[in-house]
Amino acid sequence: MIDLLSDTVTLPTQEMRQAMFVAEVGDAGYDEDPTLNRLEALAAEMLGKEDAAFLSSGCQGNLAALLAHCPRGHEVIVGDRSDLYDFEAGSVSVVGGLVLHPVPTEADGRLSLDNLRSAIRDKSDYQCAPPGVIVLENPHCQRGGRVLPASYIKEVRELADEHGLPLHLDGARIFNAAIASTKPPAEIAEAFDSIMFSLSKGLAAPFGSMVCGPRPFIDRVKRYRKLLGGGLRQAGFMASAGIVALETMVDRLVEDHRRAKLLAEEIGDIPGIRLESPVIDTNMVFFRLERDGLSVPNFLVALSQRDVRMGTLREGVVRAVLHYLISDDDVDATANAIRSVLQAEPR
Amino acid sequence: MIDLLSDTVTLPTQEMRQAMFVAEVGDAGYDEDPTLNRLEALAAEMLGKEDAAFLSSGCQGNLAALLAHCPRGHEVIVGDRSDLYDFEAGSVSVVGGLVLHPVPTEADGRLSLDNLRSAIRDKSDYQCAPPGVIVLENPHCQRGGRVLPASYIKEVRELADEHGLPLHLDGARIFNAAIASTKPPAEIAEAFDSIMFSLSKGLAAPFGSMVCGPRPFIDRVKRYRKLLGGGLRQAGFMASAGIVALETMVDRLVEDHRRAKLLAEEIGDIPGIRLESPVIDTNMVFFRLERDGLSVPNFLVALSQRDVRMGTLREGVVRAVLHYLISDDDVDATANAIRSVLQAEPR
Amino acid sequence: MIDLLSDTVTLPTQEMRQAMFVAEVGDAGYDEDPTLNRLEALAAEMLGKEDAAFLSSGCQGNLAALLAHCPRGHEVIVGDRSDLYDFEAGSVSVVGGLVLHPVPTEADGRLSLDNLRSAIRDKSDYQCAPPGVIVLENPHCQRGGRVLPASYIKEVRELADEHGLPLHLDGARIFNAAIASTKPPAEIAEAFDSIMFSLSKGLAAPFGSMVCGPRPFIDRVKRYRKLLGGGLRQAGFMASAGIVALETMVDRLVEDHRRAKLLAEEIGDIPGIRLESPVIDTNMVFFRLERDGLSVPNFLVALSQRDVRMGTLREGVVRAVLHYLISDDDVDATANAIRSVLQAEPR
Amino acid sequence: MIDLLSDTVTLPTQEMRQAMFVAEVGDAGYDEDPTLNRLEALAAEMLGKEDAAFLSSGCQGNLAALLAHCPRGHEVIVGDRSDLYDFEAGSVSVVGGLVLHPVPTEADGRLSLDNLRSAIRDKSDYQCAPPGVIVLENPHCQRGGRVLPASYIKEVRELADEHGLPLHLDGARIFNAAIASTKPPAEIAEAFDSIMFSLSKGLAAPFGSMVCGPRPFIDRVKRYRKLLGGGLRQAGFMASAGIVALETMVDRLVEDHRRAKLLAEEIGDIPGIRLESPVIDTNMVFFRLERDGLSVPNFLVALSQRDVRMGTLREGVVRAVLHYLISDDDVDATANAIRSVLQAEPR
Ligand SMILES: [Ca+2]
Ligand SMILES: [Ca+2]
Ligand SMILES: [Ca+2]
Ligand SMILES: [Ca+2]
Ligand SMILES: [Ca+2]
Ligand SMILES: [Ca+2]
Repeated sequence: MIDLLSDTVTLPTQEMRQAMFVAEVGDAGYDEDPTLNRLEALAAEMLGKEDAAFLSSGCQGNLAALLAHCPRGHEVIVGDRSDLYDFEAGSVSVVGGLVLHPVPTEADGRLSLDNLRSAIRDKSDYQCAPPGVIVLENPHCQRGGRVLPASYIKEVRELADEHGLPLHLDGARIFNAAIASTKPPAEIAEAFDSIMFSLSKGLAAPFGSMVCGPRPFIDRVKRYRKLLGGGLRQAGFMASAGIVALETMVDRLVEDHRRAKLLAEEIGDIPGIRLESPVIDTNMVFFRLERDGLSVPNFLVALSQRDVRMGTLREGVVRAVLHYLISDDDVDATANAIRSVLQAEPR
Repeated sequence: MIDLLSDTVTLPTQEMRQAMFVAEVGDAGYDEDPTLNRLEALAAEMLGKEDAAFLSSGCQGNLAALLAHCPRGHEVIVGDRSDLYDFEAGSVSVVGGLVLHPVPTEADGRLSLDNLRSAIRDKSDYQCAPPGVIVLENPHCQRGGRVLPASYIKEVRELADEHGLPLHLDGARIFNAAIASTKPPAEIAEAFDSIMFSLSKGLAAPFGSMVCGPRPFIDRVKRYRKLLGGGLRQAGFMASAGIVALETMVDRLVEDHRRAKLLAEEIGDIPGIRLESPVIDTNMVFFRLERDGLSVPNFLVALSQRDVRMGTLREGVVRAVLHYLISDDDVDATANAIRSVLQAEPR
Repeated sequence: MIDLLSDTVTLPTQEMRQAMFVAEVGDAGYDEDPTLNRLEALAAEMLGKEDAAFLSSGCQGNLAALLAHCPRGHEVIVGDRSDLYDFEAGSVSVVGGLVLHPVPTEADGRLSLDNLRSAIRDKSDYQCAPPGVIVLENPHCQRGGRVLPASYIKEVRELADEHGLPLHLDGARIFNAAIASTKPPAEIAEAFDSIMFSLSKGLAAPFGSMVCGPRPFIDRVKRYRKLLGGGLRQAGFMASAGIVALETMVDRLVEDHRRAKLLAEEIGDIPGIRLESPVIDTNMVFFRLERDGLSVPNFLVALSQRDVRMGTLREGVVRAVLHYLISDDDVDATANAIRSVLQAEPR
Repeated sequence: MIDLLSDTVTLPTQEMRQAMFVAEVGDAGYDEDPTLNRLEALAAEMLGKEDAAFLSSGCQGNLAALLAHCPRGHEVIVGDRSDLYDFEAGSVSVVGGLVLHPVPTEADGRLSLDNLRSAIRDKSDYQCAPPGVIVLENPHCQRGGRVLPASYIKEVRELADEHGLPLHLDGARIFNAAIASTKPPAEIAEAFDSIMFSLSKGLAAPFGSMVCGPRPFIDRVKRYRKLLGGGLRQAGFMASAGIVALETMVDRLVEDHRRAKLLAEEIGDIPGIRLESPVIDTNMVFFRLERDGLSVPNFLVALSQRDVRMGTLREGVVRAVLHYLISDDDVDATANAIRSVLQAEPR
């Protein structure tokens, strides 16, 4: 099976298994797990922030970060096609009494300055939930893995500053953004008060995410980690895999990006396939079917019969995600399988 | 001062003061206030529902109703230009751990069926907050007091039924909608599981709202009323005014509608004034200024210097609300004041 | 009916009805109700605090005050026999994500310093909800209306200061405490950061409570008032009655206290009646039945057949509450009715 | 270092590391982790319940279980010396709007039937938060690891049934209770609607807990798991260790119990040491110091200088916890260290 469903399906590398096997661990409940502490220091350093915390998932990372930023009753300004808004069960409202305020997501993943500006409610008006934080997503998953321009981020930072608002980055795949723009991740992170990134997607650690930011903020994140039940006892096993992920899996993301472009090129010419965007910034390819009578679900079934798995995030759009388990040959085989499906299906 | 800021500025009538003066009251904490019980029975009957509860405000009415409909973590699907979304401080998220899910509001106050359909998340997907309730607003305040067509409400009801969702009406001004469509309010309310309407807007009671619906639902509303601190001891004073409001102030709303049309006609031709909509369904007139250099704040100040007060709900739009304290002469005087402002202001 | 169920059953005086009849009111949603503003200024002045806010009930007053004191996840340290813990539906947990931490209530309404001290959790330990506020109740309702000694309050204030915690007073009946100790209420309030008192109990206003404290705190209280739906439009009607309550009903509470002592004396010698406490500080008398086979429910029914109503707050204890509608003759008649019940009931 | 601080300090066994090294894993976000599924099936079977869910910690297990049992605003009736009340940051109030209702914990860990009964508030009274669930802890950590009698559990079950309440067991160390009473854990679990037990304490898995119960309940638990960010991607690593824990580490707990008794015997006679309880049911020994001038903190420091670590859960009481890393010789050495401290310290 060539599995392009998501980069979350990545399995840990042999080196990670080895690292877990010999990991030095302790009781993190008493702050005595040396490997956890090493991972948190490494992540903070790589992102150029004062401190970092290991959380169990991207959801938990974003949740703890937003709780740490916003008092009860404040608004989380976020894109309406963001993973945070769509796939995290509204947890900031449930857990923290925060109000989600979605703004339209542009085709390239930006939230327009105008839309952001009108989403910032008047904090002196008691009829309104006051603004609490602005959240960007980079790269933007539902917009095809597009990377936000540095100049745009700078403008949003200025807007946030005007209103005294913190700026959080859902940077689940921030290393993909960094590799794509040939910048160190710390340079992207600089404009943000806090960043969440995932260890278990392209980086292939078993699970977990890191939240990076100033020390007092990270202290609050760790308090919420405990409250959410995310304080892991002998956390060093996961941390050891995370360290391997950060040390060995970042630079090779460039391969995933190259293969995503390759796949886009190979399938872009197939009659009946229309790419959502000609621009492929990172490791994802989104496309639509333009064949009457061929639905996405039927297409996905036919594809899986040819040993290729893809998925769909929203109606009518197919997504293929590249990752370290996919080779150049797999890309060719995938293109062939798509051709085969389109030839086999009645026109 | 001709006060067109809102119909919330209405003062109680002399008959209401008289009713309060002689009101028979008791301790509602022990369910012993006869006048409160009379008001709740009257409201239920008028809206064609099994039972009703008196709440302190429209905010509290909507809040208690939505808490009574939705368990923790469910979504409230609501218009992005609704008063509930914009002016109730996100209270359903803060108090009840509910997730606000705004959908685009059409120019006439409808939420399109397509947009509603895509806002209903897959309840079997643990990544998503499951849908909890759909909320419509009728008449629609921020869309100029427009009244929703019965056929449209019927379609939304069918969509809600398909998904097993309750349908709530923010009917703060439902009697305006009823008068405008020459239907009894119960006929509008019929398609909804629950309705909130206000006593203190066009109906001029000092404050308070009613929530109407099935008895077990109203019992839950009353439990939340107590939890929110909205259980009023000798509530009969307010209830007595509410009874007068329902008995004497409904039919006369037709006058406010007539005067709103009159005002729209009179000012629609003034150069520099553009009506937001040529259609005036109820008691509001929204317009924009088309004079370079004349901002809405400056316009409102100049108007107030001519003893007329209006307000603005969103950038660039002026709102005038008609109510029982405004006469035909006031409408003329208002149009004259606007003319005077536009003549005086530098072109 | 001689109604001793509670002082919440008090009906507004004729002077209050008159004040409501002529009340000058405005739209408090735009901060334009002059009578509301007068009441808030008067309450602040009487309690010696910078500002005050009118809330719909004692529940809402305590709720808004505690939300304004405590961020999400903090503990409310409160007596386990307090009205706040027992009769306010746990609203601070539901609405605000606060944790109720009850401590044992002594027979005289105090919370012992030792018990308070051990209830203050280590705020550096992420396993624990950090302390947020200490709440006292004075007079203490479930402890027979007992008044807290000034020296005790001073000690609690010092403990709170040691830990940097705010101190809130549930002073629903604070004027009873003031009258009982012949001190101005501001002298009692001085040790507290905030005080809630009720207008509708002994003071006989229709409903409502006041929260008093520093201005920035009261601003937060008012924000929560709006969020809870407790922002009342033409609030001046209730405010006008509240002003009469504060101006005319405070000094006469001394009569209620005298009659409570009188009632205690008259019934203390009746065989089969045992007073809970020989000390009557304010307007309540608690007693137990010592007659085999005579249950409290049966006693209350027999009493009501003799036109006297009392109630019970917890198993085995009867409560009688004195208020302005009860005369000296009513006290005699009550004692006679109790004697009659005890004679009639089979021994 | 002989580490008796807690059984959470246990390190995974070599067999667990081996199992993790070769674990078959998949993306649990798509329910494709075979090892996770095996662990959940095994736990359900061992506890005699229909289904089970793996959570990241005991805190998260209890939290998800109580959220799954109780709608918003209900009370969690729980011991005032329970770990859930003292060491889980009040998370059920913060996350779920539930109200914690602590009742006194008896010396042997029971909550008396009388106290439970009076903690069940009248659910028809809107002034009260309605009861939602009763929670027991077995063995009882803060009461020295005492095991609840089966007859007592049966009585609580009957009380719960009378009131239609679910009964949850915080059985973090339920296998210790099972071993101590020579019963299968399913026999203890039978009386409960749901059980949480820990994999990372005596059983020595790296981290995690299991919640067992009926399938629809476990489905709700899994939904909350996702919401809390506890959905772990390639969860099979931890699950593989958990399976080894359940298969290899349960029966040997009898050794920890034998050594706890041994330690109690050895130190019970040391002058200056007083055991909290002569009864040692499981793997813990609690004792007090009866030497003037020797404080617990000083004692713990002196002990650590002799390479023995213990801890304290509440003022004046020392706790030693036995686990698989502690041998008979360690017990002797520990007793000697204590003797040495008491001899060295000034009398
Ligand atoms: Ca992965
Ligand atoms: Ca009004
Ligand atoms: Ca025009
Ligand atoms: Ca009263
Ligand atoms: Ca006696
Ligand atoms: Ca362990």
